[in-house]
Amino acid sequence: MSIEVVSVGNEVLRGIIVNTNAAYLSRRLIEEGWEVSCQTTLPDEKSLLTPGLNEALIRNSVVIATGGLGATLDDNTLACAKELFSKPPHELPNSVGAALGYLFSEHKKLLFLLPGVPSEMEQMFEEAVLPYLKKHLPAVVLHREELHFYLLKEDDVDPLLRDLQKEHKLDIGIYPSYSGLSVVVRGPKKEHVVSARKAIAEAFKASLLPAAKLEEAIHDWMVKHHQTLALAESCTGGFMASQLTGIPGASEYFLGSIVTYANSLKEGLLDVSSETLKKYGAVSREVVHEMWTGLIKKTGADYGIAVSGIAGPQGGTPDKPVGTVFYALGKKGQMPEINTLHVKGNRQTVILRTTKKLFGFLLKKIL
Amino acid sequence: MSIEVVSVGNEVLRGIIVNTNAAYLSRRLIEEGWEVSCQTTLPDEKSLLTPGLNEALIRNSVVIATGGLGATLDDNTLACAKELFSKPPHELPNSVGAALGYLFSEHKKLLFLLPGVPSEMEQMFEEAVLPYLKKHLPAVVLHREELHFYLLKEDDVDPLLRDLQKEHKLDIGIYPSYSGLSVVVRGPKKEHVVSARKAIAEAFKASLLPAAKLEEAIHDWMVKHHQTLALAESCTGGFMASQLTGIPGASEYFLGSIVTYANSLKEGLLDVSSETLKKYGAVSREVVHEMWTGLIKKTGADYGIAVSGIAGPQGGTPDKPVGTVFYALGKKGQMPEINTLHVKGNRQTVILRTTKKLFGFLLKKIL
Repeated sequence: MSIEVVSVGNEVLRGIIVNTNAAYLSRRLIEEGWEVSCQTTLPDEKSLLTPGLNEALIRNSVVIATGGLGATLDDNTLACAKELFSKPPHELPNSVGAALGYLFSEHKKLLFLLPGVPSEMEQMFEEAVLPYLKKHLPAVVLHREELHFYLLKEDDVDPLLRDLQKEHKLDIGIYPSYSGLSVVVRGPKKEHVVSARKAIAEAFKASLLPAAKLEEAIHDWMVKHHQTLALAESCTGGFMASQLTGIPGASEYFLGSIVTYANSLKEGLLDVSSETLKKYGAVSREVVHEMWTGLIKKTGADYGIAVSGIAGPQGGTPDKPVGTVFYALGKKGQMPEINTLHVKGNRQTVILRTTKKLFGFLLKKIL
Repeated sequence: MSIEVVSVGNEVLRGIIVNTNAAYLSRRLIEEGWEVSCQTTLPDEKSLLTPGLNEALIRNSVVIATGGLGATLDDNTLACAKELFSKPPHELPNSVGAALGYLFSEHKKLLFLLPGVPSEMEQMFEEAVLPYLKKHLPAVVLHREELHFYLLKEDDVDPLLRDLQKEHKLDIGIYPSYSGLSVVVRGPKKEHVVSARKAIAEAFKASLLPAAKLEEAIHDWMVKHHQTLALAESCTGGFMASQLTGIPGASEYFLGSIVTYANSLKEGLLDVSSETLKKYGAVSREVVHEMWTGLIKKTGADYGIAVSGIAGPQGGTPDKPVGTVFYALGKKGQMPEINTLHVKGNRQTVILRTTKKLFGFLLKKIL
């Protein structure tokens, strides 16, 4: 049995919004043991949406579609689905919003229609779609192991994974991210999957994350060891703090971040001297050192990271081009590690890569 | 002529990463005047990828595929494409990374293969694909107007848009977001599109954003009026600052954010009194008032926002359930506006909605 995930809506098809619904549905279906054969995005126009849904139902026995169920002028999904079935649909209740969902069932084909609003779609999937699928179409469960690595590249792990894949006919995927990469091993035989997991973990144990995300690994370690962390951010502009505070319970170890975008705040809040700023510039080894010292003094944190750089697109110089980032990172009472990064990419990417690198360095230090 | 955007890769199909490539390509194609008929995500496995690419080429004259061009074990896109064409492809250069791109051209069908890494894909699209399409397949340009609104709902604008759509056979889309909504009007006759734009802007002028994003509107106004802004964030944990500093040139008006997650930092950095914290709790009218006063005093900013709330999932009480947010917002030398929000959703959504609401309130105040 194969499942297709269909997203309906010109806002997705035109790239005005990024398709997080397809990612959510696919991830959850895979986690529960089903396979997703294809994701499709279709337009709102009836003349294209009806044949698009029809083709999806020809390709697959189960189609889960989201979007186009509202009451505004461009919502046509329900009307189009009705053209493809002779029996009326069952209604799926919505516990968090107004829009209903629908289930069409005929000739061994299932078509679920869910709202496009992520929170409503997710709730309805968990409360109505998943229980229905579990009851009527139990999944063939593949054994599955996930490993997460930081400060590691695709090429580093590829040769070993090729060998393991050949040896036991396993399905192995490498999923790179800005912080490192994840490896997912799947196969019908549990012992093969588990032994592959062990081999991979052992080969790259210095980079193995003890959690799914860098931030979670930091979070877990800090809480477990009763240590606190604070940040002094310039070029990352609060992004580092937002990544840590996105995890529930961050207040157990995270004291806060002093986001000093203006030099006046570096002086006023972190006691960076105006002379140092004048002599070396805000993006310098000397300034991040003083930021770090001020941060530890003002917050009393056990660990601190101070960062100042040029995120671009403006502000670069021949000496310090866009992507030049200085940081100081360390433990209270010890000399901090002070260093430079040369980060590639546009503004968003420089901020993101800097954040993940520095969290990686912190984790290396504490683990 | 219609274009299909194909994403290749199990990491997308399994929801491990969100498909931002499809959004980028679709948005850019639409902006340049082409239509995107469909987005499809296909697996890495050759047995499914080859027929998937073949079907896309049957449906459309142009297919732009991303991903699966690397050298690791699960990269099969080039090999699959070669099975569908008798002539070898042209190579597309990559100015930012190692992976080449390819163009297959035969029987009036075009298949572009681009790398999956967003920065490399984007560069290659702009430098190789777009010039090729412009030269060989000029677009039928529809006139297009975009309007962006804040603190406005879909239902508010729908009736008027229905009338306008009927009147002139226009293609009108409503795209809601956490900060409000966007309206896109398209049509073959410029005067109809422009007059519809005027009618919509006039009807909802109190909520019309003078930029594409709330943060840009704040940015532009602050820079133009030589005013400065600073934040004191608790529950939003740096997210508000990161949204403002994501825009190039934010240092022209944004001084910084004091992210005081721990009460000790509220006291030490913002002069919130320990008595107020003890008596009213960190999530209270009194505490955000003192945070705001301390913020203005410590930073000297012209405008300030202080926020403290319960983002959840833990920490709610019967009195102050998850989603309770207090804020103080105002201009130096004046009494700030102090109020409560009751925000729905999970942790991420509470943080996001709070951020957009408060930026909306700030914009209402200054415009």
